[in-house]
Amino acid sequence: MAKVDFPEPVKALIGELKRLPGVGPRSAERVAVWLLQSPKADPAELASVLLRAKQTIVRCPVCGFFATQDRCEICEDPKRDSRILCVVEQATDVLPLERSGAFHGLYHCLGGKLSPLDRVSPEDLHIPALLRRIESSGEEMEVILALGADVEGEATANYLADLLREKNCRITRIAQGLPAGGGLEHADELTLMRALQGRRSV
Amino acid sequence: MAKVDFPEPVKALIGELKRLPGVGPRSAERVAVWLLQSPKADPAELASVLLRAKQTIVRCPVCGFFATQDRCEICEDPKRDSRILCVVEQATDVLPLERSGAFHGLYHCLGGKLSPLDRVSPEDLHIPALLRRIESSGEEMEVILALGADVEGEATANYLADLLREKNCRITRIAQGLPAGGGLEHADELTLMRALQGRRSV
Repeated sequence: MAKVDFPEPVKALIGELKRLPGVGPRSAERVAVWLLQSPKADPAELASVLLRAKQTIVRCPVCGFFATQDRCEICEDPKRDSRILCVVEQATDVLPLERSGAFHGLYHCLGGKLSPLDRVSPEDLHIPALLRRIESSGEEMEVILALGADVEGEATANYLADLLREKNCRITRIAQGLPAGGGLEHADELTLMRALQGRRSV
Repeated sequence: MAKVDFPEPVKALIGELKRLPGVGPRSAERVAVWLLQSPKADPAELASVLLRAKQTIVRCPVCGFFATQDRCEICEDPKRDSRILCVVEQATDVLPLERSGAFHGLYHCLGGKLSPLDRVSPEDLHIPALLRRIESSGEEMEVILALGADVEGEATANYLADLLREKNCRITRIAQGLPAGGGLEHADELTLMRALQGRRSV
């Protein structure tokens, strides 16, 4: 009896799906069977939006956010405060900060965070461009490090803080502490430690 | 200051990715940024394999497994035992059973499992075709219900067992118990209860 396997086009699809971040072999199979057999699925539409996004979206050469033409809409906006630069890991971190309504400066997307395990070293991040932006600014800037509160985010923030100390800029980090709406009984020890360390006079 | 949002092609891509099973809004954003900005990503290749799979792969009209032409390679194989029918939820459940090497009959993929929460009712599954296959068989068949050990799998197995009792077939279910290599200390109560209930003389 012949060894049964998926037909080659199904294997190719599973292979490409498996490469997506956060998608393991099992979920790749599950997504493939859904795409090919569910009446709700529309693989042609997915293929079409993939190609359209690939063809029309570029990385903003200044900040790294998504752009459709030369520069992104944030860098193009003359009303934004160019003296404050918010450093984030990914382009997707920009929108949550925008929705907070608490920031009106410009962004700089690093394109990742330092992670020896995933073989991400400083050369893999958009750090030279960040230094050039700070150096070429005529006035003193504030650089807000808005990186994750995980180990890699901490390491990246420390690395950048060391680099930036020699530049003409004020370095700040976003606060760590209790998340809004979260009670103390749900907070882990590290969060409470950070919340205590970051306490402010009222 | 204008409200910042992703450019439309990025939003469309995130929207399609969010529709995939097991992909939430956050992972859709993460996958989109990876597809558009990671040097390792190849969105054109993903689009191409999607279209190729969609164009060449059909659901086997007999059993529901993936097929490239009329019927799938399992249904086409004259060496398989047509008196044993293994009923599974999804086409992706076929390969794990094949790899076990313990089954040489034919399959029937239901296309899902009964789940009131996900609004999957008997009409959404390929049950009439299963009944026709059993009725049109000249000899008595064994129908193995190889469904998941979760609530929906149990419900589906019970529903099918009720339906099939009137037909000329022997109904069996795959065993539930300790997974291979699993010690008792890692097994939950329900698994141990099933393992005890399914005990066999040695």
